[in-house]
Amino acid sequence: MVQMYLSGMEDVFAGEEVAALKAQVLSAKSVVVTSHRSPDGDAIGSSLALKHMFSAMGVPCAVVMPDAYAKFLHWMPGHEEVRFHDAEPEAASALVSSAEVLFCLDYNAPSRAGGLMDAVNQACANAKSSVVMIDHHQEPEDFADIMLSDSSTGSTCELIYRLLQAWEMQGALDSDLASCLYCGLITDTGSFRFSSVQPSSHDMASALLATGMNHSRIHSLIYDAYRLEQVQLTAYALSQKLQVFPEHRCAVISLSQDELLHYNAQKGDTEGLVNRALSIEGINFAAFMKEDDGRVKISLRSRGSFSVRDVAAEHFNGGGHHNAAGGACEGESLHSVLDRMVALIPTWSDDLQYDD
Amino acid sequence: MVQMYLSGMEDVFAGEEVAALKAQVLSAKSVVVTSHRSPDGDAIGSSLALKHMFSAMGVPCAVVMPDAYAKFLHWMPGHEEVRFHDAEPEAASALVSSAEVLFCLDYNAPSRAGGLMDAVNQACANAKSSVVMIDHHQEPEDFADIMLSDSSTGSTCELIYRLLQAWEMQGALDSDLASCLYCGLITDTGSFRFSSVQPSSHDMASALLATGMNHSRIHSLIYDAYRLEQVQLTAYALSQKLQVFPEHRCAVISLSQDELLHYNAQKGDTEGLVNRALSIEGINFAAFMKEDDGRVKISLRSRGSFSVRDVAAEHFNGGGHHNAAGGACEGESLHSVLDRMVALIPTWSDDLQYDD
Repeated sequence: MVQMYLSGMEDVFAGEEVAALKAQVLSAKSVVVTSHRSPDGDAIGSSLALKHMFSAMGVPCAVVMPDAYAKFLHWMPGHEEVRFHDAEPEAASALVSSAEVLFCLDYNAPSRAGGLMDAVNQACANAKSSVVMIDHHQEPEDFADIMLSDSSTGSTCELIYRLLQAWEMQGALDSDLASCLYCGLITDTGSFRFSSVQPSSHDMASALLATGMNHSRIHSLIYDAYRLEQVQLTAYALSQKLQVFPEHRCAVISLSQDELLHYNAQKGDTEGLVNRALSIEGINFAAFMKEDDGRVKISLRSRGSFSVRDVAAEHFNGGGHHNAAGGACEGESLHSVLDRMVALIPTWSDDLQYDD
Repeated sequence: MVQMYLSGMEDVFAGEEVAALKAQVLSAKSVVVTSHRSPDGDAIGSSLALKHMFSAMGVPCAVVMPDAYAKFLHWMPGHEEVRFHDAEPEAASALVSSAEVLFCLDYNAPSRAGGLMDAVNQACANAKSSVVMIDHHQEPEDFADIMLSDSSTGSTCELIYRLLQAWEMQGALDSDLASCLYCGLITDTGSFRFSSVQPSSHDMASALLATGMNHSRIHSLIYDAYRLEQVQLTAYALSQKLQVFPEHRCAVISLSQDELLHYNAQKGDTEGLVNRALSIEGINFAAFMKEDDGRVKISLRSRGSFSVRDVAAEHFNGGGHHNAAGGACEGESLHSVLDRMVALIPTWSDDLQYDD
């Protein structure tokens, strides 16, 4: 098995290996595309975009996900043909482990593939399988035959677009393919907000819109699909459970298991809460904590110079990035974690007195 | 006074008049830039962007606004030099009425200029003044000497960028100028969401980011600056005052004067509420109503085929667009307007049973 690790090169898509890959796909008997567990907009967007590219090449391909994705992504062209490991474990694993060319999109290690991990590892060990990783996460494991990794890029969909360009397939860019790519682009960049957005991200968006794709409808389908209980839980948290310490530039939200149950909270329902706390003027540090199966899970965010990674590591058994980190406390009550946080806040105060 | 009404041409910036305007500005003794009352991000963004362009040309210029704009726009390069009619009425009016070249940005009629209206009209009547309108609103009044109007464009900042290109001044595009243009672009397009966004909008964003401008910081400065009371008012409205009629696909929020006073509501605090109601899954019609100085003001939104313009016109003394309209009821209590709305909802039900 020849390893072609292209990460770190100026353009990982400019190499001859990428051109050779096209020929390999064109002659392959079975091509399978996978992504990570709990697939998000970039995972399913990049997978279906690649499937549309292969369709344009006349190459059939199966898209296999470890498990289901959110209902607000079901509008995507090609959704009805996606197969799920948790729904049909044996058939899904067989497809993946025996693929002649296996694509691993938007994940950087087999362990991220959930129920598909063993099948991905089998494909990696199979001399007859070519495994291709295309991903933008940092520090990938060196598991695939071809590793197309660029962690400076905000979304895997941008890498698929570069593959489309490298394969000179711009003619295949229709509104279905564009819609899939646009979904990953906006969901992984906060709708063009994050610092990972580059001029080339907007160049790509321009080309996608030029296909006649309805970008406004896609925003609506993705962002205007809140469950009523989710809206009510968010409103309850912000009206009743938000503690603000303006003199220390800090804000904290906490939710108990009972409160989460009362609003029938689903996975993801509390995801944006910590950012809502940080969006209050003058606040440079925000924390959200919730009871979760006997643990207390903590999300931390900051603006500017204050490092929440350090806070997470020192006090809450966690880690992460400078402005976004998290942790979890086992065997400690929500009340106790909240008390510790509130006691720590004045000690950070001096370091939080700035305007970004 | 020669009228050069360029609206409706394929490219209103391609004409010789636009090239001649550059020469006129270069030789002018006094150049003044104005925008509409209650200036928003596009009004102040386009005005300061034009000022930066004139600086690059070596032409001094005054930026004069009818009144103040929100604090979250004070970061803009050039803000400290802006003058306000409501703070110094005589000096501001004199600057505007006696300008040799007067720019009217992001408004389509002198009446939109608030306290500056008379001064703008004086400049229009003055044979020694050239008045230039650059705007994207529909149905402009024919008040200026040069009318650069394109209502298919989502923001006036996009028109200023086209002026920059027409004047071949791309070399003047630094991060300060880019930041001003980016502010107007994102605030008037819902961060690239609205249907008015075109491929060229993203082409422009790409060029702005290429200057090294910090787009992520701009998003944070604009969108993460909520007053605590505003967050609490929004949360209260969504947790306590939201009525949902899922079988009719409708949602309604109402707020009394007392409730608004309790949260010390400021202008603009309730602006996004109706969209929050519309963002609930399955909802195709949303209404927000509030008591306001003895009137009841109503905002209506819809998704898809149902026309809120018709509802506003027939029942609430209003009008607007197909998916976004409003009205006002004088001499009727909030309770009464709400009762009427709730009674009307079942009559619309049949027309609201669709998925977008």
